[in-house]
Amino acid sequence: MYYGYFNGTIAPTDQLAVGITDLSLLRGYGLFDYFLTYNGRPFQWDWYWERFQNSATRMHLPLPIGKQETYAVLMDLMERSVEAGSPADMAFRFVMTGGYAPDSISIVRPNLLILAEEIHPTPQIQYEQGIAVILDEYVREMAEVKSTDYKRVILMAQAIRSAGASDLLYQKGGEISELSRSNFFIVKGNQLITPNRNILHGITRRTILQLAQGDFDVQERPVLLSELYDAEEAFTTSSTKRVLPITQIGELTIGNGHAGPKAKFLLERFDELVKNW
Amino acid sequence: MYYGYFNGTIAPTDQLAVGITDLSLLRGYGLFDYFLTYNGRPFQWDWYWERFQNSATRMHLPLPIGKQETYAVLMDLMERSVEAGSPADMAFRFVMTGGYAPDSISIVRPNLLILAEEIHPTPQIQYEQGIAVILDEYVREMAEVKSTDYKRVILMAQAIRSAGASDLLYQKGGEISELSRSNFFIVKGNQLITPNRNILHGITRRTILQLAQGDFDVQERPVLLSELYDAEEAFTTSSTKRVLPITQIGELTIGNGHAGPKAKFLLERFDELVKNW
Repeated sequence: MYYGYFNGTIAPTDQLAVGITDLSLLRGYGLFDYFLTYNGRPFQWDWYWERFQNSATRMHLPLPIGKQETYAVLMDLMERSVEAGSPADMAFRFVMTGGYAPDSISIVRPNLLILAEEIHPTPQIQYEQGIAVILDEYVREMAEVKSTDYKRVILMAQAIRSAGASDLLYQKGGEISELSRSNFFIVKGNQLITPNRNILHGITRRTILQLAQGDFDVQERPVLLSELYDAEEAFTTSSTKRVLPITQIGELTIGNGHAGPKAKFLLERFDELVKNW
Repeated sequence: MYYGYFNGTIAPTDQLAVGITDLSLLRGYGLFDYFLTYNGRPFQWDWYWERFQNSATRMHLPLPIGKQETYAVLMDLMERSVEAGSPADMAFRFVMTGGYAPDSISIVRPNLLILAEEIHPTPQIQYEQGIAVILDEYVREMAEVKSTDYKRVILMAQAIRSAGASDLLYQKGGEISELSRSNFFIVKGNQLITPNRNILHGITRRTILQLAQGDFDVQERPVLLSELYDAEEAFTTSSTKRVLPITQIGELTIGNGHAGPKAKFLLERFDELVKNW
């Protein structure tokens, strides 16, 4: 069993509920964030908090509690969840909405949910074989804000399944941005290249870019679809995917079609970092 | 007090709540619809139901109940709400979400809410003076589906207020589409002109187009910003706004800056229709 926090109250997550005038329910007005703990410590907490704060500011939602108080909530939820039999490491999901709107449209006071959740790890076989993605001509609105707007990937779920793929790779006018919930990288020789616009600035992306310094020629810049043809490797990064090879993009096989050595190298670096977190 | 329906259960709306794994809360995946009753009868029920059904199909959400059963729910909610002291005429809001997602992303079974609500009528002075709107370079994603995606207007609330305006008028590349929650019309002589793409096909819009046949040269077609300069009148239509004059768009005064006779004529026609509904 996991515990959650809702506007100051702590309870088992399956007992938490949101009233029906909430602006995320009525108007899609919400933001979120998501991260894991390693060795019982929230991973990259400073960076996640900074991002959550920025998202809130961009969406004109005043944060009801500060950083230290929030950290204390995390510790409390973790302790209660572990006492209730959950594993020591877990995920945390923040959801902040426009709050209850008696007139169905105006922000009065945001609702803040902080939920402890079970981690759903990416299956090991996906790291060994790589995943397939399909291209989608789309760019997320306000991509740099972690809003709750993920309509597109849910809408495309059937298309993804029919193609035997795992996710979407967004592109617009031939420029690649990101996957539906994770960032995108390609490798060419010693170059590690990742889009720098129309993306969510992922914390795992940032961590990987830091870990890659020294060993790679790191390039954050617009990436064109045409560059996929001579990419040797491609991979995606997120909290739960870590560094996950992409071996197929639409009809195109990336490199030799196998998970490549550079992605493996970076995954090992990442796993080492979190082991000692 | 008003009553609502949630997945088969009927209760006072302030007792209804949605669990925290709902896909509208976590991922913005929901659609809605909204209409009024006149003389205790849902206005244009057939058209609203048809639209709700189309929105649901477009979002891959199977409707859990059929048209007749839904109508019976409306009658039940109306009766209970009136017995509890609410006025005979009310609004109904449908909200259908992607439902509870244990994995936070996949649709299992939609959640359907049907809520009776108090009508918030548009102040009479706005009909007399007309409203001001500001231009916003934006087009709603899947505009023809009545999804719950209304982030933009909430995000722009401060900008609207600072400009002393009531709403946004969306345009993209010089082509006008709609206001944030209502349709847009201009009048030039005998021509009644309204955008035909990137819009929600409003039921009030449809009603007005029907009422205008015979008296106007009705044109449903792309409308350019440049056409505002010689428009004699502009107005917006929605369930609650009916036919509401727009006298100011950004820096531009429409016509002579007063609510015009054609909008008034159409409002009278509309009010006559609903009086006898």
